[in-house]
Amino acid sequence: MITVAVDGMGGDNAPACMVQGAVDAINKNSSIKVLLTGRPDDLNKALEGLTYDKSRLEIVPASEVIETGAPPVESVRTKKDSSLVVGLKLVKEQKADAFVSCGSTGAVLVGGQLIAGKIKGVKRAPLAPVIPTVNGAMLLVDCGANVDARAEQLVQFAKMGSIYAEHVMGIKNPRVGIVNIGAEEEKGNALVKETYPLLKECSDINFIGNVEARDIPYGPCDVLVCEAFVGNVILKLYEGVGSALIKEIKSAMLSTTAGKIGGLLAKPSLKGVVKKFDASEYGGAPLLGLKGLVVKAHGSSKAKEVTTAIEQCVSFTEADIAAKIEKSLSV
Amino acid sequence: MITVAVDGMGGDNAPACMVQGAVDAINKNSSIKVLLTGRPDDLNKALEGLTYDKSRLEIVPASEVIETGAPPVESVRTKKDSSLVVGLKLVKEQKADAFVSCGSTGAVLVGGQLIAGKIKGVKRAPLAPVIPTVNGAMLLVDCGANVDARAEQLVQFAKMGSIYAEHVMGIKNPRVGIVNIGAEEEKGNALVKETYPLLKECSDINFIGNVEARDIPYGPCDVLVCEAFVGNVILKLYEGVGSALIKEIKSAMLSTTAGKIGGLLAKPSLKGVVKKFDASEYGGAPLLGLKGLVVKAHGSSKAKEVTTAIEQCVSFTEADIAAKIEKSLSV
Repeated sequence: MITVAVDGMGGDNAPACMVQGAVDAINKNSSIKVLLTGRPDDLNKALEGLTYDKSRLEIVPASEVIETGAPPVESVRTKKDSSLVVGLKLVKEQKADAFVSCGSTGAVLVGGQLIAGKIKGVKRAPLAPVIPTVNGAMLLVDCGANVDARAEQLVQFAKMGSIYAEHVMGIKNPRVGIVNIGAEEEKGNALVKETYPLLKECSDINFIGNVEARDIPYGPCDVLVCEAFVGNVILKLYEGVGSALIKEIKSAMLSTTAGKIGGLLAKPSLKGVVKKFDASEYGGAPLLGLKGLVVKAHGSSKAKEVTTAIEQCVSFTEADIAAKIEKSLSV
Repeated sequence: MITVAVDGMGGDNAPACMVQGAVDAINKNSSIKVLLTGRPDDLNKALEGLTYDKSRLEIVPASEVIETGAPPVESVRTKKDSSLVVGLKLVKEQKADAFVSCGSTGAVLVGGQLIAGKIKGVKRAPLAPVIPTVNGAMLLVDCGANVDARAEQLVQFAKMGSIYAEHVMGIKNPRVGIVNIGAEEEKGNALVKETYPLLKECSDINFIGNVEARDIPYGPCDVLVCEAFVGNVILKLYEGVGSALIKEIKSAMLSTTAGKIGGLLAKPSLKGVVKKFDASEYGGAPLLGLKGLVVKAHGSSKAKEVTTAIEQCVSFTEADIAAKIEKSLSV
């Protein structure tokens, strides 16, 4: 049995979609047990009328909620009885194998490192969202809040990302690339220049070299390593350009009659493209290098994304990723 | 009379489009004189049959060409008689007010700083391409090859970008933003945290604070400041996501009959969107802070883009941007 703690109160659609997503997950997979954290009244109300195996869904009371805009460090320190902190403590105390939250990214990042705790040898736990590309999913490590990483940390990101891509995403011998401003080995800023030869020396990863930002949409590798400031820019710009372009295309089509008709006829084709680039298809972003799996799902997640995020905890736990990471970093 | 040196041999479509672009520019604007650098035989052949005022177009012989893939520093140092080096020397010797090239970005950047020379007080000359957004053009400073900038250099980028946006792009009191990973003042990496208060103190720029990458397509400011590694990632990802998405939409539409018909009907609307996001509408990227204007136009530029790039040199020279920059930096 895999036990997943789920933040019942975090995210735009909590608690309804968190509860529905949890119920769907246990109904789909009989080896999942969910511990829902949050206000029992709210959670019980959302559970009303849903059919599920009651022995595999438990409410763990938490009276507080950390709001999305609240200062992360302060919130995690002071709101000890929040659904987020209580959920992370379940991981720390090994009462849960994993924790899924759609709440504040900052609080998940801070709480994940402070409460769930890092695997021995891990210097920094990176946030590794999955980016949809023309040729499938790509893990982008690091997009977290800890910027200005050192070269040795980027090497750890590469190793942890590689293990996650292989065992959770099911990619054999995942190709690892590093974000750079040119294709040649000698290019880059001081950090990348220092990191490149270290990655080249790693015998346990399939390092393919530099990846230029313009190639990212085509998925030139499976694990793309970068410092968190750059990763954050990539993640947000990727989402931003995609949504702006789709929005512009829609409004341009609606502005003429021919465009309207054309848009209607082409709608299924367009929808296919939008779906291809939809990050929510891939569940949440893991925070790598922690003792249990901590998954940050999108704040706007619906039940389906919550279910996907819970399901990804199964492969993580079954493959014993934490042990694999510890072993890989001790080499 | 504004004299613009044009690299006749640089770019995918040289010399034909360089020559055509130069001829169109002098035909459109009688105060432009062009000095075309390159192999006289090739240039004269491309000029055959074109009608123009011969007193305003002169060929300056240069026997060598710096190829796009060649190492920039070495090329600039050894190929003294290349169309690029000869053009930059014309700026240095004040025989030309500006220089336009569609050749190797690296060589233009290196040569611009080494040969044309920096304005007094300028620590680093940034490359500042114009990014098309939903709400018009935005100058992105720096996207050049000199990474790992210091805070004081970013402040200079902000001032120089602001002057360029106001006097060449015609934007009154341009809004200056800095790329960051959050909207709050205290966010960022060490460089941005150090730069933010310095920008806030500048009385001669209209600093509006942090800009998150997801908002870039909507043009939240007129001048967007960042370190060159980040700028390069933004520029290339912006182009990459846009072109990948358009390509996917086209191929998805072509895969069904309804999509094909829909695509035909919606074509004018789609074209409008593509045009809106087309960087070539805005001419080339200026290398700011040099004694004359050095413009790097896209390697794939056609005659129209070359003409636009030459035309932008006029406002630059007329407004005496170099003097304005020198004054601004001495404050």
